Amino acid sequence: MTTQAQQQTGKIIWHFMMSLDGFIAAPGQDALGWLEGVSIRPGVVTEYAGRIGAVLGGRKGWDAYPDSSAPYGGAMGGPTFILTHHPDDAKADQAESGPGVTFLNCEVAEAARIALEAAAGKDLVVFSADIGRQLLNQGLLDELHLHIAPVLLGDGTRLFDNPGGVPVQLERLAGDDLRASVDVSYRPVRTN
Amino acid sequence: MTTQAQQQTGKIIWHFMMSLDGFIAAPGQDALGWLEGVSIRPGVVTEYAGRIGAVLGGRKGWDAYPDSSAPYGGAMGGPTFILTHHPDDAKADQAESGPGVTFLNCEVAEAARIALEAAAGKDLVVFSADIGRQLLNQGLLDELHLHIAPVLLGDGTRLFDNPGGVPVQLERLAGDDLRASVDVSYRPVRTN
Repeated sequence: MTTQAQQQTGKIIWHFMMSLDGFIAAPGQDALGWLEGVSIRPGVVTEYAGRIGAVLGGRKGWDAYPDSSAPYGGAMGGPTFILTHHPDDAKADQAESGPGVTFLNCEVAEAARIALEAAAGKDLVVFSADIGRQLLNQGLLDELHLHIAPVLLGDGTRLFDNPGGVPVQLERLAGDDLRASVDVSYRPVRTN
Repeated sequence: MTTQAQQQTGKIIWHFMMSLDGFIAAPGQDALGWLEGVSIRPGVVTEYAGRIGAVLGGRKGWDAYPDSSAPYGGAMGGPTFILTHHPDDAKADQAESGPGVTFLNCEVAEAARIALEAAAGKDLVVFSADIGRQLLNQGLLDELHLHIAPVLLGDGTRLFDNPGGVPVQLERLAGDDLRASVDVSYRPVRTN
């Protein structure tokens, strides 16, 4: 009989809305404007807000959206960690309440360990293409959860930019055939 | 009463197996080796072989796979058209029978018109990222049919490489919500 409850460790997941052609952000200032008109399954935000205990992000994303209360419509409630070599000139947190942001200046693996511990048994979500790629390449990323938007961007920040690397084989989390491809079919929206 | 049957015109479609991160070919010589172990819904090949009446491809793809009888496991039966400015040094067709290949040296839109007419009422499939992008940008691409493989490539030939362009909004061919995103979730295949 143990006298102390064993705390379960959460997973490290990449969770993004991604364009059909593999981008998570458009080039330029209006990085997420292309998502207008794209719908998401009802309940998704609540579902993820409940399972996510902390956010790990990069400096670029933070400076674009410096608000630790923003993830999952404010329903997440856990702390935010930003990996940056220069915490001194990062934008101040715009959140008026909540657990706020902690800037980390360390190796990616160490940042993930700190943030996962802060998630207190819930999952850690990685909101950065760069950090996610490094964790994936180091074997530290547990899962990828993507919402594939019916949009072709043609340019921008790729989910996984890994020139010279080897293909990363994935398997689906559920289903009869874990290596099955997913069939999608679209037509361009005619604007005229 | 008409004395001659009106022939229906097929659609121009992009049909590819694509990596989750938006690539249709890996860099280097082994462009399609990453597809090993990826499965596709049973019946897909037969289904498309029946609806496709002609293939339009580019020079690079032809020289890598110079066999007009290869598409859809040989079950397609229609002609192949290859758009190239230098037909003279293209590789010879390795097909031993069938309708063979025709090299076209013209504008993309004209090549699509010729190949669609040759499809004789069936659909024209475009097996080229470059030609497909141009047709899409000219408003001539009717549909995109993709099989998203559980693989991250990180590098290679992108489905839609369109720097400086505007986002292309798509809609699903069927469903209650044509602008819905598609949810997928994976874990990396552990190789050790």
